[in-house]
Amino acid sequence: MRARAYATTAADQPLAPFTVERREVGPADVLIELIASGICHSDLHQARSEWGPAKYPMVPGHEIVGRVAAVGAQVTRFKVGDLAGVGCMVDSCRACRPCAQGDEQFCEQTPAWTYNGTEMDRKTPTFGGYSTHVVVTEHFVVKVPEGLDPFAAAPVLCAGVTTFSPLREWGCKQGDQVAVVGLGGLGHMAVKLAAAMGAEVTLLSTSPGKQADATRLGAANFELSTDRTTFKKLARRFDLIIDTVSAAHDYNAYLNLLRPRGAMVVVGVPPTPSPVSAFSLIAGNRRLAGSSIGNMRQTQEVLDFCAQHRFGADVEVIKAADVNDAWERMVKNDVKYRFVIDAKTF
Amino acid sequence: MRARAYATTAADQPLAPFTVERREVGPADVLIELIASGICHSDLHQARSEWGPAKYPMVPGHEIVGRVAAVGAQVTRFKVGDLAGVGCMVDSCRACRPCAQGDEQFCEQTPAWTYNGTEMDRKTPTFGGYSTHVVVTEHFVVKVPEGLDPFAAAPVLCAGVTTFSPLREWGCKQGDQVAVVGLGGLGHMAVKLAAAMGAEVTLLSTSPGKQADATRLGAANFELSTDRTTFKKLARRFDLIIDTVSAAHDYNAYLNLLRPRGAMVVVGVPPTPSPVSAFSLIAGNRRLAGSSIGNMRQTQEVLDFCAQHRFGADVEVIKAADVNDAWERMVKNDVKYRFVIDAKTF
Repeated sequence: MRARAYATTAADQPLAPFTVERREVGPADVLIELIASGICHSDLHQARSEWGPAKYPMVPGHEIVGRVAAVGAQVTRFKVGDLAGVGCMVDSCRACRPCAQGDEQFCEQTPAWTYNGTEMDRKTPTFGGYSTHVVVTEHFVVKVPEGLDPFAAAPVLCAGVTTFSPLREWGCKQGDQVAVVGLGGLGHMAVKLAAAMGAEVTLLSTSPGKQADATRLGAANFELSTDRTTFKKLARRFDLIIDTVSAAHDYNAYLNLLRPRGAMVVVGVPPTPSPVSAFSLIAGNRRLAGSSIGNMRQTQEVLDFCAQHRFGADVEVIKAADVNDAWERMVKNDVKYRFVIDAKTF
Repeated sequence: MRARAYATTAADQPLAPFTVERREVGPADVLIELIASGICHSDLHQARSEWGPAKYPMVPGHEIVGRVAAVGAQVTRFKVGDLAGVGCMVDSCRACRPCAQGDEQFCEQTPAWTYNGTEMDRKTPTFGGYSTHVVVTEHFVVKVPEGLDPFAAAPVLCAGVTTFSPLREWGCKQGDQVAVVGLGGLGHMAVKLAAAMGAEVTLLSTSPGKQADATRLGAANFELSTDRTTFKKLARRFDLIIDTVSAAHDYNAYLNLLRPRGAMVVVGVPPTPSPVSAFSLIAGNRRLAGSSIGNMRQTQEVLDFCAQHRFGADVEVIKAADVNDAWERMVKNDVKYRFVIDAKTF
């Protein structure tokens, strides 16, 4: 079927209306009619070939929520009318060790990314969620609980699972001291999720103006990372640090805020490597880890967790025609905290 | 009591005979008459004030094995004649959170290090194991199984537990792929321990001449880290990497050898920080961690483990009068793989 979409044709071109031919619904496929399509900062990086040469035309978007419009004969978990979601992946080899362990995002063949990638035939290009419809194989479709607002739920498919995954993997629990570094799309979800898990959350930011929002989102404490006394005051405080910052910063300073055996998990990608001193790690058996999105199980879990705790992302809903302006505002961090496109307007 | 010892009086002075006044055996104390006193590279770093200003006179040594010669009235775990060991610590506050959790090495008051430190009164200097006798409070004395050779056992108190601790903490088990980087005092224990835990061990070294020893010590594979094809060949291979190298090297190259959720643990301290790229960590949720010696429970465990598997360190036993020469040879890596002083010769 033909789906309306927005696409860009080159790194220096704006997004513009486009038509995508979606494949016929196969036996294992789910056709979703989109309600909401979140805008992730990585959409812009990829559209502009900032993460290596991109595939054009590109239909970005990997924060997809909509209603199931058709299902293939073998589909068991979805029926027409269900609320469903799709995140960063639409397929993987399903045979390698990581896939067998349920870590589709680490597929040794590389997953079929939702856009700017190919299906597992390694030929057919994938087109993402800035579109009225998508067709995705059932395993890579998650259920969106009816209690969640579809617009608030869309960013949970990427920003939500990207912060939920390290909180779960590193055992965040009631009473833990958790720091979140940076309050943007990822940071605001990390604060909400960690607070809902019962942690005492401290937001570390360079912007004094973020304090009120940090408190509203659930942070018990707010500290300025521009004030060097902060790093003395908070030494050895945290069980876990979720670092969402994509500007250059000194990992050592943050590692020193960890308790023995504490972990700092980076989910932001600064433009240059950060020098890490062995002493920063050895003192207190500290851990510096990375975390990449999440697997399909975790993607379902974070949606269920959000529904249970009755929150999604803080979003600003826009029309498709305003997407280029929204990208420019996103570059300036002028968004609280995620743009979501109303899919009716594609 | 007066104990014979070897001490240095300044950063540029050699070790020379010295007399230490050991405290009277208190109710909780154990008096040990030394058999073997291992030489750790950190002895030299500290004696030469390379890790910050040192306390002089300094009696180095934190790899101590001997026979119990007296015990205080409250001592329950030792009796006269028992084989006993002392490692890097001789006391801690025993009240802070890490101490309460059995992580004495992370004591928030700083442990009483075996030498170049103070007792917990923060006044009385500590003097280490290059000596005929030590008096140590029972909690910081471990049992040395009778089946272990005391000379081979001495380095287990530092080099052994320093590599055993990360292997255990990161769950090394039968069938795991473990890389050990560097074959020195720490590396040779890491190879023996990981192999005894059932892992398939790969030794990564800059020296082709180390291959025969690596194999003898239990490594299934040997690869040159100077050959860049090594890093392509071994990509995504390892569950765990124990990095014992104290020369500058690129952590990113090694991180790429980890499987998803694999960990690289540094126990060596290069002179300068290593730049770490966020992508190296985020790709595959990889972990970069440090590990500092081990706690008292782990120190006992590694001795018991070595006894069970019938090995200690590979050592060259020397006389006290040769200790300055041994230090010079250690600087040139001319030791396989640990010097141990025969305590009768102090």
